[in-house]
Amino acid sequence: MPHKGFTLWLTGLSGAGKSTLAHRLAREFRERGYRTELLDGDEVRTHLSAGLGFSRQDRDTNVRRIGFVAKLLARNGVIAITAAISPYRDTRNEVRREHRDFVEVFVDAPVAALAERDVKGLYRRALAGQIPNFTGVSDPYEAPANPEVTVHTDRETVDESLDAILTYLEDKGFIDAEAPVGAGGL
Amino acid sequence: MPHKGFTLWLTGLSGAGKSTLAHRLAREFRERGYRTELLDGDEVRTHLSAGLGFSRQDRDTNVRRIGFVAKLLARNGVIAITAAISPYRDTRNEVRREHRDFVEVFVDAPVAALAERDVKGLYRRALAGQIPNFTGVSDPYEAPANPEVTVHTDRETVDESLDAILTYLEDKGFIDAEAPVGAGGL
Repeated sequence: MPHKGFTLWLTGLSGAGKSTLAHRLAREFRERGYRTELLDGDEVRTHLSAGLGFSRQDRDTNVRRIGFVAKLLARNGVIAITAAISPYRDTRNEVRREHRDFVEVFVDAPVAALAERDVKGLYRRALAGQIPNFTGVSDPYEAPANPEVTVHTDRETVDESLDAILTYLEDKGFIDAEAPVGAGGL
Repeated sequence: MPHKGFTLWLTGLSGAGKSTLAHRLAREFRERGYRTELLDGDEVRTHLSAGLGFSRQDRDTNVRRIGFVAKLLARNGVIAITAAISPYRDTRNEVRREHRDFVEVFVDAPVAALAERDVKGLYRRALAGQIPNFTGVSDPYEAPANPEVTVHTDRETVDESLDAILTYLEDKGFIDAEAPVGAGGL
């Protein structure tokens, strides 16, 4: 089933749920028969960006590399999902301009909510001044000005956020709409 | 036209003709209707490996990155052509093991022949001891032990080398055999 590839670019703070959403999306796309690759933060840091740190320059390099690989995949019919914090608006827009089909998803959750959840204890330490260059606390995060989709993970379930993204993609023709449940049997 | 992707990994000395062959192959594959990406040395140095030098470690990092991207493309139905010197046998074999379908092409030409041609004057300078880490002169090149194809660019025309590679790929079913010229009109 050849189909149009595109890049689904998730951006947001650490702990906002990018990776969880990205994995759920990847599974959903594969179940629907689409070629899909997930460029997750960890895999990318290992294979593309080992040695880079968290300065603005290094973060930008990381984001541009992910963008380059996503572009190659997308223009070959793959849905490329990325899940890097990608904190700088200009750099994300630079990646967008390299693409024909680019969907930016703002995975939005306020620092206060993330600090309360704080699964890894990172926000507590960052807010105590113990982690330099921690995005949203000691380093900037520039929210997208015009993302194609915004999900509010502090007040939506994962299923709700997932539905919002899938609905957008179906409405815009990036993926086919699912047949209603039971329609196959009529 | 969905088809099986694979990586076509060209390895050989600087000036041996990897890039020329890679571009001819890419054009040929596209004309035959295959999705194709060429990961050429320069593009890769710009987009994936800026900042890396020519130490063994940096060369290996460069080769592994190219291998990672090629693998992502190949497993999604793309013919990924690479054209990096990739001097170290172990590192190439490491990339091979990450792949399901991997075709190594040894673009073979002796230093003496390359030094005679020496389009960019690099061999003359390297042989005069003016370029450290110049593969084949002041830095090692480990020829493949069992490449799928070897082309001898010092004594073959580009067309002959191209034919040798295409014939191998057709024989092994990586690409469809071309219909004989004129067969379409019968």
